Amino acid sequence: MSQHDALSEFDLIKQYFVRQRPGRATLGIGDDCALLTPAPGRQIAISSDMLVEDRHFFAGADARKLGHKSLAVNLSDLAAMGARPVAFTLALALPQAERGWLAAFSEGLFALADAHGCELIGGDTTKGPLNICITVFGELAPGQALRRDRAVAGDDIWISGTLGDARLALAGYRMEHTLAPHEMSEAASRMHTPTPRVELGCLLAETGLAHAAIDISDGLVGDLGHILKASGVGATLDVDALPAGPVLARQSAQLRRSYTLAGGDDYELCFTAPPSSREQIAALAARCATPATRVGSIDTAAGLRLVDATGAPLDLALRSFDHFTQ
Amino acid sequence: MSQHDALSEFDLIKQYFVRQRPGRATLGIGDDCALLTPAPGRQIAISSDMLVEDRHFFAGADARKLGHKSLAVNLSDLAAMGARPVAFTLALALPQAERGWLAAFSEGLFALADAHGCELIGGDTTKGPLNICITVFGELAPGQALRRDRAVAGDDIWISGTLGDARLALAGYRMEHTLAPHEMSEAASRMHTPTPRVELGCLLAETGLAHAAIDISDGLVGDLGHILKASGVGATLDVDALPAGPVLARQSAQLRRSYTLAGGDDYELCFTAPPSSREQIAALAARCATPATRVGSIDTAAGLRLVDATGAPLDLALRSFDHFTQ
Repeated sequence: MSQHDALSEFDLIKQYFVRQRPGRATLGIGDDCALLTPAPGRQIAISSDMLVEDRHFFAGADARKLGHKSLAVNLSDLAAMGARPVAFTLALALPQAERGWLAAFSEGLFALADAHGCELIGGDTTKGPLNICITVFGELAPGQALRRDRAVAGDDIWISGTLGDARLALAGYRMEHTLAPHEMSEAASRMHTPTPRVELGCLLAETGLAHAAIDISDGLVGDLGHILKASGVGATLDVDALPAGPVLARQSAQLRRSYTLAGGDDYELCFTAPPSSREQIAALAARCATPATRVGSIDTAAGLRLVDATGAPLDLALRSFDHFTQ
Repeated sequence: MSQHDALSEFDLIKQYFVRQRPGRATLGIGDDCALLTPAPGRQIAISSDMLVEDRHFFAGADARKLGHKSLAVNLSDLAAMGARPVAFTLALALPQAERGWLAAFSEGLFALADAHGCELIGGDTTKGPLNICITVFGELAPGQALRRDRAVAGDDIWISGTLGDARLALAGYRMEHTLAPHEMSEAASRMHTPTPRVELGCLLAETGLAHAAIDISDGLVGDLGHILKASGVGATLDVDALPAGPVLARQSAQLRRSYTLAGGDDYELCFTAPPSSREQIAALAARCATPATRVGSIDTAAGLRLVDATGAPLDLALRSFDHFTQ
């Protein structure tokens, strides 16, 4: 079949998304439903994310990176729950069935899926404005989930990895900020190919060391806010302790504070844990080669207090990303 | 809050999609993932369908009916597998957060969900061209699934309900065919508010009476073709035995044959079962008030043979719906 033959819906699925490899599913792609047989006594964690062109990624975005990111943002939700990835479904609306795009997209998708043993078990394809909807399934033991509503006053607040480089890249694309080409390229890789912190999340859940967790997708202040609200607590954040991405770390203090606090697209974990767990958490983070930094503490008093390295209060106007008011 | 206040993503979810009622989920909307605890020893059936404006429904479609249909097409996949509905996720891209639309859409969605005890456990909302992606979860006993690859030569072929009225309504909308207003309205209700045959599918699986099943969404010929291919068998269909919808039944024989064989949007079940099960299947269909009609048989010889009421071969040019070649 030549490169330019029309690709039917079934050929498209068969050529780019069906793979001849054994997986966890009892029945995968090719029937009305996929069948999963849960491991005895395990719970299933489920999350859906929908990525829309011009909203979550630029028109003409690199298809391989888009395949990676579409699954990464979902795996990040599993990580924040402490669930081990098992499988996912992919629903895809495409303006046209373009072989080069499909080959690159599926390559990026499966490279990340394979790295996490996460099997594509079904989905849907249709013509339409480019839209990628993945629903991901993970497993965990009952009672081990890292929920948002379990933070306790006195807990440390931890952040995995670094924050803000994805937002800095967006500023570069938007010409809000000028970056050298090598800086732009480094920051952009954080935006386009985020690393979901799956191993850290799973170990935190399995060891019981963390109380609450969330993944940072809309900006730290907004996402930590969900933990505070759900847990009925407040927090104090040491803004200067926030781990900025390597490119952002070389920018002004103002930009660093702004983008670490309210950047978005970070896909790092924010979790809380009792001070008695500090050494064990540091060891566990080292074990999975994921930096983890203490950035503040959970308080009894409601609200989020921002302080600088000296403990002096900061009054920064920040808002979290919202799809319908921005 | 007035009708015209901007609705944030979180308010939208809270006001229209979070419900204060106990469900099957261990943890529902409001964390990084939902948590489901599978019933011991049961398998999970999973299906995703994505509905796109101007492709699966008209721009400006009635939001209540769209809420119904978005879930109905997914429940139909569970029915075709014989899985009992448990829960679903909803990912929704909307051009804007419009209160009237959201109220009507969620009303239609939940009316059908409640009728099947199927709980909304999570999802995503974003701004973007209207796109509705539902992933549905059902449960069934291992070994009971109605798979596509289990048809056996000698099996009867059965169809639930009636076929073709949805396609007839489309012909009406497209001015390909003229219908009286009351006929148009009756046919259109089949197109906009299909009835997923959940109870029939589950009973067929639980009693073990059926061998193979599929739901008819792209037209009988194409969908039955999937059973034939997966099972390595052929079939003979009595075209004049196909149960036409009440409006289509009053049209010409040519239209009746064409739309029952290759209409699309039917969401009826096509299943195969040994002739020894005829009486039990009829009783079971009566028990769930769903008509079931025998329309042909599975053969050893590959291919699909169409015959008329006298057994004479028919040579009809038909094709199944395909999103990328049509």
